[in-house]
Amino acid sequence: MDFMTGVKKARTLELGELQAHMGQEVCVNGAIHTIRHMGEIAFVILRKRDGLLQCVYESGRAEFDLKDLKEAAAVEVTGVPEEESRAPGGIELCMRSVKILSMPSVPMPLQISRWKLDTSLEAKLNMRSISLRNVRERAKFKLQEGIVKGFRDFLYAEGFTEIHTPKIGARSAEGGSNLFRLDYFHRPAVLQQSPQLYKQMMVGVFDRVFETAPVFRAEKHNTRRHLNEYTSLDLEMGYISGFEDLMDLETGFLQYTMELLQREYAKELKLWGITLPKTDRIPAVRFDRAKELAAEKYGRRIRNPFDLEPEEEVLIGQYFKEEYDADFVFITHYPSKKRPFYAMDDPEDPRYTLSFDLLCHGLEVTTGGQRIHDCRMLLDKLAARGMSEEGLEQYLDTFRYGMPPHGGLGIGLERLTMQLVGEDNVRETTLYPRDLSRLEP
Amino acid sequence: MDFMTGVKKARTLELGELQAHMGQEVCVNGAIHTIRHMGEIAFVILRKRDGLLQCVYESGRAEFDLKDLKEAAAVEVTGVPEEESRAPGGIELCMRSVKILSMPSVPMPLQISRWKLDTSLEAKLNMRSISLRNVRERAKFKLQEGIVKGFRDFLYAEGFTEIHTPKIGARSAEGGSNLFRLDYFHRPAVLQQSPQLYKQMMVGVFDRVFETAPVFRAEKHNTRRHLNEYTSLDLEMGYISGFEDLMDLETGFLQYTMELLQREYAKELKLWGITLPKTDRIPAVRFDRAKELAAEKYGRRIRNPFDLEPEEEVLIGQYFKEEYDADFVFITHYPSKKRPFYAMDDPEDPRYTLSFDLLCHGLEVTTGGQRIHDCRMLLDKLAARGMSEEGLEQYLDTFRYGMPPHGGLGIGLERLTMQLVGEDNVRETTLYPRDLSRLEP
Repeated sequence: MDFMTGVKKARTLELGELQAHMGQEVCVNGAIHTIRHMGEIAFVILRKRDGLLQCVYESGRAEFDLKDLKEAAAVEVTGVPEEESRAPGGIELCMRSVKILSMPSVPMPLQISRWKLDTSLEAKLNMRSISLRNVRERAKFKLQEGIVKGFRDFLYAEGFTEIHTPKIGARSAEGGSNLFRLDYFHRPAVLQQSPQLYKQMMVGVFDRVFETAPVFRAEKHNTRRHLNEYTSLDLEMGYISGFEDLMDLETGFLQYTMELLQREYAKELKLWGITLPKTDRIPAVRFDRAKELAAEKYGRRIRNPFDLEPEEEVLIGQYFKEEYDADFVFITHYPSKKRPFYAMDDPEDPRYTLSFDLLCHGLEVTTGGQRIHDCRMLLDKLAARGMSEEGLEQYLDTFRYGMPPHGGLGIGLERLTMQLVGEDNVRETTLYPRDLSRLEP
Repeated sequence: MDFMTGVKKARTLELGELQAHMGQEVCVNGAIHTIRHMGEIAFVILRKRDGLLQCVYESGRAEFDLKDLKEAAAVEVTGVPEEESRAPGGIELCMRSVKILSMPSVPMPLQISRWKLDTSLEAKLNMRSISLRNVRERAKFKLQEGIVKGFRDFLYAEGFTEIHTPKIGARSAEGGSNLFRLDYFHRPAVLQQSPQLYKQMMVGVFDRVFETAPVFRAEKHNTRRHLNEYTSLDLEMGYISGFEDLMDLETGFLQYTMELLQREYAKELKLWGITLPKTDRIPAVRFDRAKELAAEKYGRRIRNPFDLEPEEEVLIGQYFKEEYDADFVFITHYPSKKRPFYAMDDPEDPRYTLSFDLLCHGLEVTTGGQRIHDCRMLLDKLAARGMSEEGLEQYLDTFRYGMPPHGGLGIGLERLTMQLVGEDNVRETTLYPRDLSRLEP
C-alpha cells in the first residue's frame, strides 16, 4: 500500500532557482528550443515554461556528443550554472550530460526560435500547438491569463460570488437568429449566447455574482473582431444606485488588473513592448454626443442617429485619445431599440437606456447597463416587443418574488487581450478560434 | 463630460463594517428575509450576501409603519447597531427609517427562512432562484466557489497556465456515442466531452496547463451522480517522472483547498456542520487489489475483473474508511480496455494503464493518468483500436514535433462538492442541472 502525501520537491530546478546554485551541479529539464553552432562550442537553448535557458556545449567538458541532440527534443540536462551577462537572465548552464526524455520524429515546420514568427495567421492557427512554442506568441496567452486573474481577484475582494451556469438550454437570453441549435435527447435546445438570465436570477441570492466562461454566437460575421465562441467575463451586481456604479466597478477592475500585469507579468509585457493603457480616469460620454463629437471633428456625416458603426467607434476612440489622452472611453445611453428587453430605459427619455459600452482604442470590449428589476415593467416591455413569456417563467418569477435594483456587464476576453497586446485580429489572441470557416482542431 | 475613477466607498455598510459603528446611525441594504412579530416589537431579518442581520422594530423609535414592509422586499434600512448577544453576529440594528428599493408582487412560494427547506429536490430545482435564498442552500455554492478558487490558486503557485479551449469542435477527445451534435454553419459539429486533446497539445507550449470549464456528455444515465453538463477542473502536466506525480499533485491541491475552506469559508462549513475530509495521506491501491480487498471483507463475488461497478466503489470507500480512516483513496492501474486511446499502458503489463481514479467516500471524483507522448506508440494504439486518424491531424503532429512525458486529470466539480457537503444527489450541488429530463430554466 502506497500513500500520497502531496507535492514533493522536484529533482530538477526551475529558472528562478538557479541563482541559488551557482557553480554547483544541477539538473534542469525542458525542450530544446534551438541549437546554435559556434565552431568550438555550441549554444543549446532550453525552453521552459518561464523562459529560455542558454546551455553551453563544449566537447571537452561534456560527456556526450552534440549530434545526439535534436531541436524539439525533451531533455534533462545536468550541468553547472555560471554567470554570463550576455545570456538571457544573466545565467548560462555548462552542460555535462543529457538525458533524452523524448525525440521528435520529423523536423520542425516553423522556425519557432525567431523573435517574430514570419508566418501568416492562417498558418499559425493551422499549427497552433507548434507556433505557440515561440515565446513571444505564447506570451499573449499569459497576459490573457493575467486579465482573467485580475477580474476574479478584484471581484472576490468586492464581495462577488463565482457561479457556473449551464451552456445548454431550452432558450437563450436574447433569442433571435444567432443561436446554435442542437438536439437534446429529442428536444430542441440552444447554446447560451450569454449567462444573462442566470446571473440576474442569482443576484437575488448572492447580491453580486460573476462567471468566466464560454458563450456561443452563430453570427455570420467574418471580421477581424468577431468570434463564434468566446470567453465572456460576466458580472451582475445588486443594490446599485445607478448604472454609473457599474462603470466605476469596471474602472476599478481595469486599474487593479493593470497593476497586476505590471507586477506579475512584466516579462510578457516586455516581450511585446507594451505600455499599459491609462485607467486612472475614464471619460464617459453619451451615445448621441459621442457621435456628434466624432462627426464634427472628422467631418463624417451621421447616417443613422440610432446606430454606432465600427468606423464611428474608431473615430470616437481617436477623438478621446487626441483630446483627453484616453485609451478607454465609456459610451452611455444606447438607444433602447439596440438593447435587449431586460435593459432599463432612461426614465428621462425612454428612447435611450441606462446602459453603456466600453471602447478600448476604438473597439467595443464591454457591454453593460442597468436591468429592469420591477416585474410589471419587465412584462410590459416583453409585451411591447411582441415577445413571448414562454421559457422565461422562472426568470420572471424571480422578479415577482422581489429583486433589488441591479445591473451588470460582459467583457470579451479575447478582444480585450487583442487591444492590450496591439494585435489587429482577435484570432491572434484566441487559443483555438471558432469562426465561419474554422472548426478544427 | 464625466470621468469614472474607480470604486467609491458605498454609503451603505456591510455586516463586517458594523462593529466599527456601534451606537452611530448607519445605512444597510438587503432583502427582507423574514419578519417576526413579537408583540410590542418585531424582528425584521435582513438577508445580505455575507449573512443575516437582525433589525428591531419598535413603533416608538421607528419613523415608519411596520405594515409598509413585506417579506422579499429589497430595502435600505437606517438605524443604529447595538450589541445583542442573541442576534446572529452579536449585533442588532435598531430601525429608524426604511427606504423601499423594490417590492415583490406575490407572496413567497417557499419558506426560505426555515433552517432546512422542507421541499423536494424537484421543487427546489423548479424554483432555483428562490430556494437558493435559503442561506443554508446557497452556502453549498459558496463552498463550491472555494473548491474552484483552491484549484486555481494552488496551480498558479505550481507554475500552471490557465487556458480556454473551444467547446464546439469537429470531433471530441474520445468520440463515441455520448456526444451532443449540432449544426455549425452547415457542418456537423460536436460539444467537447473534455478539453483532453487541447490541454495535451498545450503541454508542449506551457509545460503545465489547467482549465475550469463546462464539458458535455450525452449519456443516457439517469442516476444520482450523473449530469449531462458539468464543470470540469482539468489539468495537464509535462515532465512527470511517473503518474504518481499526478496523484501527489492532486493530494497537494486537496490539502491546500481544505485549508482554504477552513480559513475563508468557515461560516459555510458551520452551516452544514461539515468536518473536512482528511488529506494528509491518501492511500493508493491497484484496481485489481482494491476489488479483491472489498470482495474478501464484504463477501462480494467479483463478477467482472476488468470493470468497477458503482457498488464496488462504495465498498472500497468503506473498506479504506474502516481500515485506514481514509476519506479519499486512489485506485490505480485501470484496465487498458476501459481507458481511452491516449492512456499510457503499463509497460510491465499492457492489459493495465498507468492511470487512476480518485474516490471520495466511495464515489469517483477524478479520472487521471499518464498519457502516451511518443508519436509512434500513439499511432500504433489508434491502429490497434481500429480508430481513424481523421480529425486528429494537429493533435498527432504535436507529438511528431516532440512532446515531454506528461499526464493529467479531470475533477468533477459538482461531484466533489456533493461529497464534501454530504448531499446524496449531484443535482443538489449543481446550480442549474442538465439531465435527461431537465433542460430548463
